[in-house]
Amino acid sequence: MSRILARRCPQGLLRQAFSAPRTNVTTTPVRAFASATSNAPSFNWEDPLNHKALLTEDEIAIGETAERYCQEQLFPRVLQAYRDEHYDPKILEEMGDLGLLGATIEGYGCAGVSSVASGLITRAVERVDSGYRSGMSVQSSLVMGPINDFGTAEQKERFLPGMAKGKIIGAFGLTEPNHGSDPGSMETVARPHPTKEGVYLLSGAKTWITNSPIADVLVVWAKLQETGKIRGFLVERSACPPGTLETPQIKNKTGLRASITGMIQLDNCPVPKENMFPEIEGLKGPFTCLNSARFGIAFGMMGALEDCLARARTYALERKQFKGNPLAKYQLVQKKLAEAATDVAYGTLAAIQVGRLKDEGKATPEMISMIKRQNCDRTLYHARTLQEIFGGNAVSDEYHIGRVVANLYVTQTYEGQSDIHSLILGRAITGVQAFV
Amino acid sequence: MSRILARRCPQGLLRQAFSAPRTNVTTTPVRAFASATSNAPSFNWEDPLNHKALLTEDEIAIGETAERYCQEQLFPRVLQAYRDEHYDPKILEEMGDLGLLGATIEGYGCAGVSSVASGLITRAVERVDSGYRSGMSVQSSLVMGPINDFGTAEQKERFLPGMAKGKIIGAFGLTEPNHGSDPGSMETVARPHPTKEGVYLLSGAKTWITNSPIADVLVVWAKLQETGKIRGFLVERSACPPGTLETPQIKNKTGLRASITGMIQLDNCPVPKENMFPEIEGLKGPFTCLNSARFGIAFGMMGALEDCLARARTYALERKQFKGNPLAKYQLVQKKLAEAATDVAYGTLAAIQVGRLKDEGKATPEMISMIKRQNCDRTLYHARTLQEIFGGNAVSDEYHIGRVVANLYVTQTYEGQSDIHSLILGRAITGVQAFV
Amino acid sequence: MSRILARRCPQGLLRQAFSAPRTNVTTTPVRAFASATSNAPSFNWEDPLNHKALLTEDEIAIGETAERYCQEQLFPRVLQAYRDEHYDPKILEEMGDLGLLGATIEGYGCAGVSSVASGLITRAVERVDSGYRSGMSVQSSLVMGPINDFGTAEQKERFLPGMAKGKIIGAFGLTEPNHGSDPGSMETVARPHPTKEGVYLLSGAKTWITNSPIADVLVVWAKLQETGKIRGFLVERSACPPGTLETPQIKNKTGLRASITGMIQLDNCPVPKENMFPEIEGLKGPFTCLNSARFGIAFGMMGALEDCLARARTYALERKQFKGNPLAKYQLVQKKLAEAATDVAYGTLAAIQVGRLKDEGKATPEMISMIKRQNCDRTLYHARTLQEIFGGNAVSDEYHIGRVVANLYVTQTYEGQSDIHSLILGRAITGVQAFV
Amino acid sequence: MSRILARRCPQGLLRQAFSAPRTNVTTTPVRAFASATSNAPSFNWEDPLNHKALLTEDEIAIGETAERYCQEQLFPRVLQAYRDEHYDPKILEEMGDLGLLGATIEGYGCAGVSSVASGLITRAVERVDSGYRSGMSVQSSLVMGPINDFGTAEQKERFLPGMAKGKIIGAFGLTEPNHGSDPGSMETVARPHPTKEGVYLLSGAKTWITNSPIADVLVVWAKLQETGKIRGFLVERSACPPGTLETPQIKNKTGLRASITGMIQLDNCPVPKENMFPEIEGLKGPFTCLNSARFGIAFGMMGALEDCLARARTYALERKQFKGNPLAKYQLVQKKLAEAATDVAYGTLAAIQVGRLKDEGKATPEMISMIKRQNCDRTLYHARTLQEIFGGNAVSDEYHIGRVVANLYVTQTYEGQSDIHSLILGRAITGVQAFV
Repeated sequence: MSRILARRCPQGLLRQAFSAPRTNVTTTPVRAFASATSNAPSFNWEDPLNHKALLTEDEIAIGETAERYCQEQLFPRVLQAYRDEHYDPKILEEMGDLGLLGATIEGYGCAGVSSVASGLITRAVERVDSGYRSGMSVQSSLVMGPINDFGTAEQKERFLPGMAKGKIIGAFGLTEPNHGSDPGSMETVARPHPTKEGVYLLSGAKTWITNSPIADVLVVWAKLQETGKIRGFLVERSACPPGTLETPQIKNKTGLRASITGMIQLDNCPVPKENMFPEIEGLKGPFTCLNSARFGIAFGMMGALEDCLARARTYALERKQFKGNPLAKYQLVQKKLAEAATDVAYGTLAAIQVGRLKDEGKATPEMISMIKRQNCDRTLYHARTLQEIFGGNAVSDEYHIGRVVANLYVTQTYEGQSDIHSLILGRAITGVQAFV
Repeated sequence: MSRILARRCPQGLLRQAFSAPRTNVTTTPVRAFASATSNAPSFNWEDPLNHKALLTEDEIAIGETAERYCQEQLFPRVLQAYRDEHYDPKILEEMGDLGLLGATIEGYGCAGVSSVASGLITRAVERVDSGYRSGMSVQSSLVMGPINDFGTAEQKERFLPGMAKGKIIGAFGLTEPNHGSDPGSMETVARPHPTKEGVYLLSGAKTWITNSPIADVLVVWAKLQETGKIRGFLVERSACPPGTLETPQIKNKTGLRASITGMIQLDNCPVPKENMFPEIEGLKGPFTCLNSARFGIAFGMMGALEDCLARARTYALERKQFKGNPLAKYQLVQKKLAEAATDVAYGTLAAIQVGRLKDEGKATPEMISMIKRQNCDRTLYHARTLQEIFGGNAVSDEYHIGRVVANLYVTQTYEGQSDIHSLILGRAITGVQAFV
Repeated sequence: MSRILARRCPQGLLRQAFSAPRTNVTTTPVRAFASATSNAPSFNWEDPLNHKALLTEDEIAIGETAERYCQEQLFPRVLQAYRDEHYDPKILEEMGDLGLLGATIEGYGCAGVSSVASGLITRAVERVDSGYRSGMSVQSSLVMGPINDFGTAEQKERFLPGMAKGKIIGAFGLTEPNHGSDPGSMETVARPHPTKEGVYLLSGAKTWITNSPIADVLVVWAKLQETGKIRGFLVERSACPPGTLETPQIKNKTGLRASITGMIQLDNCPVPKENMFPEIEGLKGPFTCLNSARFGIAFGMMGALEDCLARARTYALERKQFKGNPLAKYQLVQKKLAEAATDVAYGTLAAIQVGRLKDEGKATPEMISMIKRQNCDRTLYHARTLQEIFGGNAVSDEYHIGRVVANLYVTQTYEGQSDIHSLILGRAITGVQAFV
Repeated sequence: MSRILARRCPQGLLRQAFSAPRTNVTTTPVRAFASATSNAPSFNWEDPLNHKALLTEDEIAIGETAERYCQEQLFPRVLQAYRDEHYDPKILEEMGDLGLLGATIEGYGCAGVSSVASGLITRAVERVDSGYRSGMSVQSSLVMGPINDFGTAEQKERFLPGMAKGKIIGAFGLTEPNHGSDPGSMETVARPHPTKEGVYLLSGAKTWITNSPIADVLVVWAKLQETGKIRGFLVERSACPPGTLETPQIKNKTGLRASITGMIQLDNCPVPKENMFPEIEGLKGPFTCLNSARFGIAFGMMGALEDCLARARTYALERKQFKGNPLAKYQLVQKKLAEAATDVAYGTLAAIQVGRLKDEGKATPEMISMIKRQNCDRTLYHARTLQEIFGGNAVSDEYHIGRVVANLYVTQTYEGQSDIHSLILGRAITGVQAFV
C-alpha cells in the first residue's frame, strides 16, 4: 500500500484497500486481482509481458484499490447511466474520497503519486467506461492540473482542496464550434471591462465540453483583446450574472453517454483579473493540460482494451457452435484474441515508459502524441474486432462491448484526432509541417 | 417509368413518380437524382464506374421512385425513431402502397420486377437506415419469399396479397439463442398433437427476430419430431391460444434501433398442417430465404455507403480548419473519400452482376455469400473511416454517421457473420470444410 | 473463335487457336480453360461471379488463345529470364504473330478487337509475368497507341505494321529522374536546330523506360522551347548520330526482372519535324497513352492475382501439417483464399465495365485511375497474403510467388503510384486538389 | 564501455570502440550515434520513447561498437553479396574478434553480456541485413546456445571457444521438407549402429538450414529409434565418411540472399554417442534454442525497421515533386513515417522488457512468440509501406529497401510463421488449442 497515499488520504484509499470485501461478481467477467503464487514463470494472458514487474508496490496497491472501487461501485451503474445519458456528480465525490482526483499533485489534499500510479487509476476507471474516465480526467488533468501548474497561490488554495474532494467540479473550455483541431484560431475573446478596472468580459462559445453543465469552475481559454494572446481564466459559475454564462447539455450523443457534455456560451461574462492564470500565454497553457490528459487517455485505453479482451475471451469459451466446440477453438477467433493481447502488452509498456520519463522531466509532447494516438487507434481497432466474436449478441447492450466500441470512437477523436497526431509526429520526424 | 410496375401498381409507384414534388432538402446532403445532360463523358463521383449504364429504364425509374419516397418520407423520421427505439408499422403499409414489398414476385399484387430493381429498392431504403431495410427485407425476402417459393396455392392466396400491401406483417424465425451461426443444431421442435389430427405443437425459442413483436404471421423453422427434418410453419398470431406464442421485444439495442426486434417463444403452440410448407425439407428452405435476403443486404449496403460518402464529402467541403482550408483539401481526407468511392463502384457492379445471374438462374449461394460478406465488410470499414472526417462532431447523432456505423456492425454480423461467409467461400474454393 | 481476328490475322490467332495441342502441364497449377458442362449453376472458384457471362464468344476465344500461348510459350522461360535479368525480344515477334500487339487498333495489320478482349490478352500475359506484360503494354498502349491516335497518316504507315508484327520495337519516354509523379515539370527540351530547317534537337534524360535499350523507335515527350508546351517525338534509333542517343540498361532491379528497363539520354539528338505528333500538345498526349496502358494493367492484375490464388490453393491442398491435415483445412488459410477470390471477382467486373464504357466513349481518366489503383493495390495485398501460405518454401523461386510479389510492387507504383491516384480521385470527388 | 566485455575481449570490442575512426558516410543515411547534449527533453525521432534511458552504460557501449562494425564493415559489402547470393564466412571471424558471438554465454571466451546487450548486437547486424543476422543467430543461439545449455563439459570445451572466435561454424538442423511448422512429426532417425557400440547412424533430410553448406558442426535433431524421442546430435563434418553427409546449397532464393542456406542430407551418418546432448529430450531442446533465436529476431527487427525509416525519411526530405515540395511535406508520407516510428518505439520497449525478464528467469516462450510475431509483422508491414515513398526508384537495389522488404518476408515466416505464433498465443490465452 502506498505510504504516501496512506499518509495523505487515510480515510480514502487506505480504508478501501484493506477492508472492502470484494463482492462476488459472477455474471460479469472481471479481471482477477490475485497474482499467481508459483515462482516458475508462467504466461499470464492478462499481463502478457509482465508489466507488473515494472511497478512499485505502492503503484500496485493504488491500482488495485482503484480497480476495486471501479468494479464494485462504478460498474454496476454504468449500463443504466449510459442508456439514460446520465452522469451522477456523486461519482466525483466518491473518487475524491479515495484520493483519485488530481492524484499526482503534491499537497492541497492530493495524493502526490507517480504518473504511472495515476495512469493505473485511469486504466481502472476506463475499464468500466470511457465516459467515467473522461469526467475524472477533466477534473484532474484539465482543471486541477493547470491550476496547480499555472495558478497563483491564492487560486490553488481556493480551488484545489475542494476539487480534490470532488466537491467543486471543473470543466475545461478550449474547443470551439468552428475550431476543433486548430485551437489557435479560437474566437473567444476577453476584453477589458469598459468601466470596472481589473475585470475582463469574456465572450464566445466552446463546445464538446465534458462536465460543463454541472461545473462550478470552468477553465476558459480566450484571446486577450489587448495582446491577441491566448490566456486562461477561471470562470466561477456562482459569480456570473444571469445571462452571461450558459452551459447547455448536448444530448443524444452516440458515445460517452455516461459522461455529461455541453457547451459554454459566454456573453460579456465578467471575470476578475485575479481569476486569470498569471503568466502562461499562448497555446502552451492548454497544450500542457492536454498533454497530461492525453497521457491519462493512453493509459486508460489499456483498461478498455483489457476489458474487451476479457469479455470476448469469456464469451468465446462459453459460447459453443458447430458440434459443441467453444468459439475459442476456432483459429479466426484465436487470432483476434492474440492480436488484442499483444497490443495490451505493448501499449502498457509504452505508457509506463512515458510515465517514468514524465516524472523524470524527460517526456516530450510528441511522445504523448505517439502513445495517445497508438493506444487509442489500436484499442478501437481491437474492440471492433473482438466485438465480432459476440456475433449478433453484441447488439444487446448487456454484453457491454457495443457501448465500449461506441465510446472508443470518441476517445480516438478527442484531444487530438488520430490523423492530427500523425501530422504532429510527422512534423517532429521530418522537420516539415503538413497541416496546410 | 416501369411499364410493368405501372400496370400492376397504378395507384402506387406511378402516382408517386410523376406527381410528388420533391421537397427541397437543404440541410441534408442527399443524392442528386438528375443526370448530367452533356454527352461528353464526365466522372460522376456518385456513380464512379457508371453502373447506371447497366440498368434498364424501368429499373432506373423504380430506383428513383424508391429514393424519393425514402428521402421524403423515411428520412425525416429516422432520427427520432432511432433515439426512441421505435418502429412505425405504417411504414410497411406505405411501402406496400408503392409496390416495394415482395417486388420480385409475379402476381398477388406484387410488382414482378427484376432482382436488380429490387436491389435498387433496398439500396434506397438502406440509404436512410438499415433498420428500415431490415423490416422490409424480412417482409419481402424472408416471409413473402418462402410463401411464394414453397407455399401451397392456398397459402399464397391467403397471405401474399395482404403482405404485398403491408397489411399483414411477417417475421422469420430461424436463429435460436444457442445456435447463431449453426442453425442445423436448432432445438425448436414440432410434435404431432396428441389428440388433434393434422395439428402440430411447436415448442422452442427463436431470438433476434426482426418484426416479431408486431408480426401477424411468423415463418417458424422447426424440426419435425417424426423425421428429425427441419420444416417451415406459418404461425398465425391470431390463431394461437393464449400462452402458446410470446414475442417479447428486445430493448436497449446498440444498433438497428429504428427496427423492432424480439424473440419468439413457442410453448406447445398448435399449428395446422395446412400451415406447413408442403415439400421443402432441411436447411434448403431457410437457406433459400436467406440467400434472397443476403442479396438484398449486399445491394442495400451500397446505399448506406453512398450516404456516408455523400455526408462526409459535404462535411469535408464545408468544414474549415487551419487557415481556412476545407478538410477536403487534406490528403488524408481525400484518401478516405477515394477509397470509399471505389468500393461503392465495385460493390455495386458485383451486386448487379449477381442480380442478373439470379434472374437467369445462374446465381449460386456462394456468389451471394461473397457479395454479402464483401459489401458488408467494406461498407462497415468505410463508414468508420469516413466517420473520422467528422471528428468529434460525429458524436452528435444529428450528423447521422454514428447511427449508420452502429447499424452496419449488425448488418455485417446477421445473416451470416463475415467469418462464417469466409469459411463458406473457403470450402467452395478448396473442397475442404473448416467449420470444425 | 473471333471472326474479326480470324479475318485479319489468319496466320496468327486462328492457327494457334485450332491447331496447337495443349501440352500437359502437370507440375504447375494452371488455370483450366474448359467450362463445366452441366446446366445447373455451380460455383467456379476460378470465376466466382461468372464474369464469363459478360464476354462475347470472340472475346472468350481470344482470351483462350492468349492463355494458351502464354502458358505454353512464355511460362517455361520466365524463371530463367527473371534470374538472369534477361528479356528476349523474340517474344514481341511471337506476340505479333498471334495478333496480340496493338490489338484494339483497326487496320495496319492489327486485330481491331474490343477493349475487353485486349484486357483478356494482358490478363493472360500477366498471369505469367508482369514484366512480359509491361513489354507488351509499352509496345501496344504507349507507342502504337499514340501513333494511331495522334500520328500523321505517314507516321502510321511507317511504324504500325512493323510494330504490329513485333519487328519494330517501341519505347515510351515520359518519366524523368527528378519528376516521377509530376511529369508536367519535365526538363527534356526540343530546340529548333540552329541551322537545319524543320529539325529539332532533343536534350534531356528519361528513366525507368521499359524496352529502351532494345527499342527501334522511342516516343519521347519534350517541351518545345518555342512554346513551352509538351510535344511528342518519334525518335528513330537508326537515324540518331553517334552520341546523341544513349539507352543504357538499368540492372540489378528488385522486380520486373524479366523485362528490360533503361534510361534514355538525349544530347542534342536531331529529330525531323515529320517525326513530331502534329497536333497533340501538353500532358493530354502522354496521359491518353497512360490511360490506355493503365487500363491494361488493371486487367492484367487479375491474371497475376488468379495465378497467385491458384498456386496457393494447390499448395494448401497438397501441403500437410499437423496430423496430416492439408493447409487448406485451416481457417486462417481459407480466409486468405476467400478474400483473394473476392477481389479477383470484383476487380474483373470493374475492368470489364470500364472496357465496355471505353468502347462506347463513356470512360473517363478517373475511372481508369480507380481501377488501376484498386486492382494493383488489392493484387499486391493478396499476393503477399497468399505468399504466407507457402511459409518458408516461398523463398525458393521455383514456387513463383516470390517473383510475383516482387513484380507487383512495381506495377502498383508505376504509371501512377497508388497514393497519386488517390489524390486524382480525391480531386475528382471534391473538386479540390491536394497535390500541393 | 562494457567493463565485462573489456575484461574478456580486450583485443575485440574494446579496441574497436576506442580507436576505430568512424568513416564519413555521406551517401548513406546512417543512424547517428551521438546523443544530444542539452538537458531539456527533446523528441528524438530515432528513439521516440527514449528506450536508451533503460539501458546500462555497458549496453550502450556494446550497441555502439556493434553498430560501428556493422556500418563500416558489413554495410559496404552487402549489396554485392546479395546480388551474387554469396556469404563470406570471414564475417563470422570478424564478429568473433569483436566478441559478438555467443555473447550471453559466460566463459569459453564469450562476453557474458545481458540479453538486452545481445539484442542490441542483433539489432545492429540486422540494420544492415537480415541474412547477416541469420548467420550470426544460428552460430550464437542455435548452436552455441544448446551446447552451452545442454552439452557435456567436454562438448563445451571442444566447440565453444572455436565457435566464439568464428573459427568453427555451426548449423542447426530441425526443419524437414515435409514438416515446417510441425517439427514434432520429424522423420530423421538415429539408429544404433549395428556393430559399433556407442555409435548412432543418422538418416534423414533437413532443409532451409542457414550455414549448412559451410558448417563444421551441425546440431541435428533426430528421433532415437529406441525411444521415439527427439534427441540432439553434434554432427562434425570432418568425421563423416564420404556420402553420409551432404549439405547442398539452395540457390535462387527470393530473400536472405546475403546468407547461405542449404539442406542437410544424412545417409546412415555415424555419430558417436559422446556427440549427443546427454539429457535433453523431446521438443524442449530445439524449442529452447528457437526461443533464444526468436528473441534475437524480435530485437533485430527493430534495426531493420529503423534502417527503412531512416532511409525513407532521407529520401522524403531530398526528393522533391510538385512545385518543389519535398515528399516529406505530404500528409500521406508523414503518416507512413509516423506509424513506422511508433512501431519502432513500441517494439523496442517490448524487446527490452522481455530481455530483462529473460535474465531474471521470468520470461516464458509465449512472451517470445508475442514479440517475435509482432515485431516481424510490423516491421514487414512498415518496410513495405515505407518502400512506397521511394516510388519507382525502389526498384533499384541501390536504394536498399527492396532487399530489406524481400528479407523481411523470410524473417516473418521462419522460426515460427506469424499465424503459428497467433495460435500459440491463442492457446495460451484460451487454454484451447486450434492447430488441428
